[in-house]
Amino acid sequence: MIIKNGWIVVDYIRNYRDGAVVIEDDKIVDVGPTEDVLRRHSGSGHDVIDARDKIVIPGLVNSHTHISMTLLRGYADDLPLQEWLEKWIWPFEANLTGEDIELGALLGALESIRFGTTTVYSMYHYHPGHNEASGLIKAGLRGVIGIAIFHWSRDKNIKMFWDAMGRWHGRDGLIKVSLGPHAPYTVDPETWMRLPEILNEANERYGDRGRVIISSHIAEDWRENELIRDKFNVDIPGGSIFRYLEKFNILSGDFLAAHCIHLNQVDLDLIHKYSVGVAHNPVANLKLGMGFADTPKMLEKGIRVSLGTDGPASNNTLDMFETMKFAALINKPIKRDPSVTPANIVFRMATEYGALNLGYNDLGILKPGYKADVVILDRRKPHLTPVYDIYSHLVYAARSMDVETVIINGRIVYDGGFVNTSLDDVISRVENRVYELLEKVGKGD
Amino acid sequence: MIIKNGWIVVDYIRNYRDGAVVIEDDKIVDVGPTEDVLRRHSGSGHDVIDARDKIVIPGLVNSHTHISMTLLRGYADDLPLQEWLEKWIWPFEANLTGEDIELGALLGALESIRFGTTTVYSMYHYHPGHNEASGLIKAGLRGVIGIAIFHWSRDKNIKMFWDAMGRWHGRDGLIKVSLGPHAPYTVDPETWMRLPEILNEANERYGDRGRVIISSHIAEDWRENELIRDKFNVDIPGGSIFRYLEKFNILSGDFLAAHCIHLNQVDLDLIHKYSVGVAHNPVANLKLGMGFADTPKMLEKGIRVSLGTDGPASNNTLDMFETMKFAALINKPIKRDPSVTPANIVFRMATEYGALNLGYNDLGILKPGYKADVVILDRRKPHLTPVYDIYSHLVYAARSMDVETVIINGRIVYDGGFVNTSLDDVISRVENRVYELLEKVGKGD
Repeated sequence: MIIKNGWIVVDYIRNYRDGAVVIEDDKIVDVGPTEDVLRRHSGSGHDVIDARDKIVIPGLVNSHTHISMTLLRGYADDLPLQEWLEKWIWPFEANLTGEDIELGALLGALESIRFGTTTVYSMYHYHPGHNEASGLIKAGLRGVIGIAIFHWSRDKNIKMFWDAMGRWHGRDGLIKVSLGPHAPYTVDPETWMRLPEILNEANERYGDRGRVIISSHIAEDWRENELIRDKFNVDIPGGSIFRYLEKFNILSGDFLAAHCIHLNQVDLDLIHKYSVGVAHNPVANLKLGMGFADTPKMLEKGIRVSLGTDGPASNNTLDMFETMKFAALINKPIKRDPSVTPANIVFRMATEYGALNLGYNDLGILKPGYKADVVILDRRKPHLTPVYDIYSHLVYAARSMDVETVIINGRIVYDGGFVNTSLDDVISRVENRVYELLEKVGKGD
Repeated sequence: MIIKNGWIVVDYIRNYRDGAVVIEDDKIVDVGPTEDVLRRHSGSGHDVIDARDKIVIPGLVNSHTHISMTLLRGYADDLPLQEWLEKWIWPFEANLTGEDIELGALLGALESIRFGTTTVYSMYHYHPGHNEASGLIKAGLRGVIGIAIFHWSRDKNIKMFWDAMGRWHGRDGLIKVSLGPHAPYTVDPETWMRLPEILNEANERYGDRGRVIISSHIAEDWRENELIRDKFNVDIPGGSIFRYLEKFNILSGDFLAAHCIHLNQVDLDLIHKYSVGVAHNPVANLKLGMGFADTPKMLEKGIRVSLGTDGPASNNTLDMFETMKFAALINKPIKRDPSVTPANIVFRMATEYGALNLGYNDLGILKPGYKADVVILDRRKPHLTPVYDIYSHLVYAARSMDVETVIINGRIVYDGGFVNTSLDDVISRVENRVYELLEKVGKGD
């Protein structure tokens, strides 16, 4: 497949105003000015997509969500966190089956694809047959699924991790499995201590393919350290949650810490020292009233900050274009400096850094040898006229719904309609099932 | 025209899940459950729009922008305010003709309409023949244009105000003219003192039709009071800019103060006392690093806070759906309380309060006797499934591009395409003209 005559955004610095991308199987094999690329591939018999007046970008990477929570989108908003969780979210979730989780993931996958996201990290409850992975595959979305681990269900959760590795890891070239210790206030020291041996075992069993990431919610709430101390009777040395985590030997470039709002200097130094990745979720952090992660400081230290939407119950979308704009803007007034988190760096957070934080070394850039996850936007719109700077346009002006074509793993999955699924069918199934679930929690009409 | 079977959102509280709206000429004449409305209007020969699976809302009101600045969208981002203004924006603007201002307004009007906005307040430089008003009219958008007044060009500006009143006030049932004293740091005390007599004269000349609003930029930058003191050698009593403005006898329900970020308690009390309206511009306030207006406190006092995008050079869109989401979210972490600025109140800010702040008593609600400005959104989308709460959906999940049909003053102006204008023609003209303008400021390729 050749995409030609488009404004090709290779990465956060390089772009060709009239460029082309060549895809063979699941890989990008060539990128450059249209003229050069066509010369190199003349007579090659590729399908051609004419991208005149279009912008061609690497697919966006949503590095933190709970995708099946589309089923709870808008179910309860504008409520204090504990009331929201205990009275609304948890009772509803207690009724979800594996089929529900698959259906929610499928709905979320369609939304993600429609909005130009080609890879998600998603942590949720795992059921062997039907789960997030099976939902993503039905839509054709790439994803890393995090098998949630809580200390009260540790053994069962770890068993499920191995089940997921056997059944889903590597499936269809789209799915990776990972360890999802939920958070330091729901995971006790004993459980953290078990994780390095699981990582070793994964490497022994699966070799290189067994390299999995660990992701956890860290420092989302300003009250967390207090909670951890009270719950597990432990010391958080100097109030640094990363100093506390360090002793479990789990910090590394394969550790992805979601949120990281309430950190101190020691935390930042340790994140940098261990090359830990950070998944920043600006919309959900605001919506739940949690705070503003200091991403300018992290980026300045060279920390890989990627972007996530968090779950659709606390956002309420999976829109990474919107997330880029929030990420670019929220720290400017706090620093009283409009030059922090500039557009092209935010674009890097949503693409290259997202890919790296999910353990991919060949994703998030339009580069030969990289995975063919490519998104095409139409720019013949009032709100995208005129154009001065392509990164400014992508972060501050483009809307998720400008996305016109989505290619994942070399295959078109959206071209104005969804290629692999009937949207009407998914919507009907969700509406019917949600009606039943509301009856169960006593909130039916 | 009858719009039936839609989810009719009358205002921030009332909505009909299966409702209908009847429009005759430029007015709404009936609203209610579909069955009742159809019974009342059977055999009336109206055109019928079937809004099954659609959401029908009052058109959004953008209560502060500089709409012609679409021409400078993304021209210079992520820069400190003074550098942005002095090195980039002002030199570019110095070259703009009346025709440019009209073209920029037309482009912005198409964007506004596409995104479900049916009324804008826009302050900019006025040229008699071609200006913002002529641009809005070409697209069919309703607008209040603010004739910018600066102390260094006061007499000319006031002359232009009278010219605009004569030529454009009331034009096509779409345009109102208003006074736009730019800001207390660009308008000297003598100029402020002249304004009440102008308002009186407008009433004498035009009667009821001569009631015009005054709008100004107030307390956008934390350094403003200092600047005003230095520039005009005046006292800002107790650091309250509204105490300073009070003595010019211009505070009233017809005064609309844009931004209002850096206020003290005296300011809030005076805003409330005089029933002054506030236009909150969350996206631009963040983008320029200005700060967070305390809208929860204002709303609690009963102040009418409406929403605006500000100019497209500091946003970079005219997207009021996005603005609603920012307005709902940014104060939650500051108050550490997710229940502030809940979705339905934010919807009220974007509709009813916007209309009131622009001096309309018959706009912003789907109510018999009110102006027929109506927007229809399609909700058969992944990101709008399932639906629990319609206000949550409109503020947190709906995207501007879900807008499918836009009716202004009883006439369809968008139904998948623009009814009054050729988008391709507008885009080509803008692109050509911007190229010339860049040459003039020495920033051409």
